Amino acid sequence: MKKASISNNVIRRLPRYVRKLDDLAQQGVERISSSELGRQMGLTPSQIRQDFSCFGEFGQQGYGYNVELLRDEIAAILGTKRGYTVMIVGVGNLGHALLENFDFIGSGFQVVSAFDVLPELVGTEICGIEILDGARLPQLMGERQADIAVLTVPRGVANSVANLLADNGIKAIWNFTNVELHLQNPDVVVENVHFSDSLLSLSYYLSERNDREAAGGNL
Amino acid sequence: MKKASISNNVIRRLPRYVRKLDDLAQQGVERISSSELGRQMGLTPSQIRQDFSCFGEFGQQGYGYNVELLRDEIAAILGTKRGYTVMIVGVGNLGHALLENFDFIGSGFQVVSAFDVLPELVGTEICGIEILDGARLPQLMGERQADIAVLTVPRGVANSVANLLADNGIKAIWNFTNVELHLQNPDVVVENVHFSDSLLSLSYYLSERNDREAAGGNL
Repeated sequence: MKKASISNNVIRRLPRYVRKLDDLAQQGVERISSSELGRQMGLTPSQIRQDFSCFGEFGQQGYGYNVELLRDEIAAILGTKRGYTVMIVGVGNLGHALLENFDFIGSGFQVVSAFDVLPELVGTEICGIEILDGARLPQLMGERQADIAVLTVPRGVANSVANLLADNGIKAIWNFTNVELHLQNPDVVVENVHFSDSLLSLSYYLSERNDREAAGGNL
Repeated sequence: MKKASISNNVIRRLPRYVRKLDDLAQQGVERISSSELGRQMGLTPSQIRQDFSCFGEFGQQGYGYNVELLRDEIAAILGTKRGYTVMIVGVGNLGHALLENFDFIGSGFQVVSAFDVLPELVGTEICGIEILDGARLPQLMGERQADIAVLTVPRGVANSVANLLADNGIKAIWNFTNVELHLQNPDVVVENVHFSDSLLSLSYYLSERNDREAAGGNL
């Protein structure tokens, strides 16, 4: 596979394809053309063909794409078949919500541990995962090595905990703290979740709607 | 402003610019060139100039951009100066986490109400917001009309609650339920938060890192 030159924009679109193809498969759709897929996703057919061509050929000219096959190929490219394991670091409201509601298994990931420093949480279980003592993080995380840490600790300790995780072998951090992490180890993969980006986009589209309606009202 | 033909890709980048410019302002940076801004954000200078040209001219050739001015202009384009109000619908772990940790005010939004159906929550307060009775949603939301509903209810009721909100005048829904909403009112602006998109991107970059290291190990 000629992976070297894939742009971040393409990478960012791949999970959307997976979601869309999951939906289509659930609706019983077996094949789909690039033009129909594009119509449903707000992308041009040539954009779609170009995206997929980065990874080789999935479709057959004139026959469209096999929905399940394409879904599996893209999921594999995204690494969801590699059996990555996950630890939750910080089981406050957000960590708790992710443990309880996020479909890690369905996305291809397995939660192996969860940590918090609150004495009343340590030793309890959420969805079958025992909350371990955050004060013993370095020791305990070594026993159940995870690939990815979900960082849901308070802002104030985000950087110190992130560096502690990196020092103890974590390779990737899914960062929900809204703090820009400064890691001593530059090899750690960091993915930031910025809720505000999504709210601001919504705000733009709402403003557009309001302006359109105001203009219509003045006609 | 020539807003009509702005692509979704540009809209999606605007919040990132706001975040970056906020960071720069906090660091005391007053002016920045498009090439330096591009370097820090992983975008080309021409991409940046092109993005901003959609909305008119912010910079002066050779002088770079005024960081605070540019930040305010983009924030205004995104509608964050319009005083939008927000209601939280569903104060489980996620709704609670947003109420407690998300900086609505700092992003330009004001939370005016929160709803839940759990009797033990109704009447309590979180961060100064009283939790109102979800069973009386239509009546109570009319009294404190919000522009945007944050949908953090369980999956099973996502669509019925979303339609109830739309029927009662909500114009935009920030959807955290991971359920694709089917609204009878096509004018409602829906913004979906898909945690999995971000996790799958992380998974890709982690896989890339692992492959690189494996290849290095074989040299």
